[in-house]
Amino acid sequence: MARHELQLGELPYDPLEEEEEEEQANEDGASSTRHEDGTLRLRNPHIAEMGPDILYHLGLGSGSHDLQDMFGDVRFVCMGGTSRRMEQFAYYIKDEIGYKFPPGTTLLDNSGCCMYKVGPVLCFSHGMGIPSVGILLHEVIKLMYHARCRDPVFFRLGTCGGIGIDGGNLVISESAVDGLLRPYLDQLVLGKIQRRPAILDPELANDLMNLRREDDPPSSGTLGQDHVPGRVDGAFCEYTEADKLAFLQKIHGENVVNMEMESLGFAAFCYHAGPAQLLWCVVAMLDRLQGDQVQTSKEVMNKWQEYPQVLVARYIRKAMGLPPSHTPEGTLAGSSQRSTGS
Amino acid sequence: MARHELQLGELPYDPLEEEEEEEQANEDGASSTRHEDGTLRLRNPHIAEMGPDILYHLGLGSGSHDLQDMFGDVRFVCMGGTSRRMEQFAYYIKDEIGYKFPPGTTLLDNSGCCMYKVGPVLCFSHGMGIPSVGILLHEVIKLMYHARCRDPVFFRLGTCGGIGIDGGNLVISESAVDGLLRPYLDQLVLGKIQRRPAILDPELANDLMNLRREDDPPSSGTLGQDHVPGRVDGAFCEYTEADKLAFLQKIHGENVVNMEMESLGFAAFCYHAGPAQLLWCVVAMLDRLQGDQVQTSKEVMNKWQEYPQVLVARYIRKAMGLPPSHTPEGTLAGSSQRSTGS
Repeated sequence: MARHELQLGELPYDPLEEEEEEEQANEDGASSTRHEDGTLRLRNPHIAEMGPDILYHLGLGSGSHDLQDMFGDVRFVCMGGTSRRMEQFAYYIKDEIGYKFPPGTTLLDNSGCCMYKVGPVLCFSHGMGIPSVGILLHEVIKLMYHARCRDPVFFRLGTCGGIGIDGGNLVISESAVDGLLRPYLDQLVLGKIQRRPAILDPELANDLMNLRREDDPPSSGTLGQDHVPGRVDGAFCEYTEADKLAFLQKIHGENVVNMEMESLGFAAFCYHAGPAQLLWCVVAMLDRLQGDQVQTSKEVMNKWQEYPQVLVARYIRKAMGLPPSHTPEGTLAGSSQRSTGS
Repeated sequence: MARHELQLGELPYDPLEEEEEEEQANEDGASSTRHEDGTLRLRNPHIAEMGPDILYHLGLGSGSHDLQDMFGDVRFVCMGGTSRRMEQFAYYIKDEIGYKFPPGTTLLDNSGCCMYKVGPVLCFSHGMGIPSVGILLHEVIKLMYHARCRDPVFFRLGTCGGIGIDGGNLVISESAVDGLLRPYLDQLVLGKIQRRPAILDPELANDLMNLRREDDPPSSGTLGQDHVPGRVDGAFCEYTEADKLAFLQKIHGENVVNMEMESLGFAAFCYHAGPAQLLWCVVAMLDRLQGDQVQTSKEVMNKWQEYPQVLVARYIRKAMGLPPSHTPEGTLAGSSQRSTGS
């Protein structure tokens, strides 16, 4: 099959047509996406006019549920790819923040996306890829709006492929780029390409980096790419191992140290819609410069997947004014003892 | 935010650079993606060379599992978006084809994607959006290859938004287009755009249409669009209801009667990788010309979601040489009695 060849760095757009930077005042007080009290202001005039709003994938609605009563206390929104990981995180964060269910109750997922609420922490699974993340973020951001949540912070916890970093290394991203190393998400909307900047909060990334302890695995604060840019072990593959390595070396030279499938969408959606406080913390499952297949044992991978959870739990404890955890669960070494919610 | 305006029909590619049609011999015998005995031939020379192949998301491997023994009898691969729907379908198809589990056993999902095997039928959930479908299709197609399955037929069962057709109507698609009405999937691979034709098997769509009965809901055999091209009820929205309606009317005028998020990827991946026998059968949840929110009751929506399952079950029964089902479960009217797998 012939390819339309668009080289890295060769933009399909006229660079003179760069859009203006998003006007997003971050000083104290109101902004285009935030009221003075920290509640969200939607960039969609239709929502206020249209009557009850059905959040289809979450199984909720502004007419059928008292969303402010149910979710008004949410301050932290934690997302991850797999249902099982987010269910585990829900039980883990419950212990970490000392949250107690009313006697005789436990967590229940009433939605279609494995959504759990543990006091001020909302956890859900966003599936794989930007379209899946986008569908759910639209609804979760509207949920924050209807519930009048104040200054919610969004986290993505997950896994990624490393580029020149070993499996088990943490990546706390400062920015996200697409497959052509552009910090934008381009989407077709009503037959037109709409370009949204993918911008993260460097302060929040710094805060998370500062919560690392001596015995934590190495962390990098770098670019994250939005997709898997080529692997030779797919059901089809038209390039050679050498082509792939040359490409990976090239983007590694541009400080891209990891790749995954959701960050660009996460950054672009959250930045445009309102929750400017967002970051992700992912752990590399392998170094793609060494191969495409995940060869590590399930036990070691499960251990690695706990690293981002432990770090984000430290952040949430601190933001809630709780002392640093000194229980074994609060350290990487002891985190395998967490409840699995079974 | 400024938009880079790319009008419908205004292609970002040089039309003179159209790639050659895929050479995919469909006569009896071998082809570029099929051996004479119907087993798959992968378009990836690396797989045969690289030793054990780990199917990460399926939780399987060609070194750790006897894939031919476990999956060699699979003839039908049925995919859908939600885990719950595919679990229900697994129990339903079990009854429809008269499959019996060994005494004291039941279905078990050992993978991360809700995968169930019921005799010759493999069911799994593909999540939302083309990236998610792509990740899983790569691995499922490789599974068919390692297991030496013969002429597997791929089905997508699911839901969609209608454009000018009512909720509850079936759509059996004959082709798929992208947001600019082009029958291609463009993907960035190693920094280059790779274009893959999204081609379906019209004969298979015809076979399914011919299995409809008088009391079935109306069906259309038409174009399906690959994404939700704009809705006014998102967390953000920069266009008016009138903009949206004008766009939907325009694409409806081009015979697009439904929209969903996976078809284009499903068609492009399966056509290129080998299983040329594929089709989807989806049911509209609403007419987007009338609004963006799903207002129908959960009971009615659950009933609608059974329609594609019933039709595909009729196809599988026929292909297996079983007589048409005369039990209540084999008709739309009785399909709510199916086992839910609880």
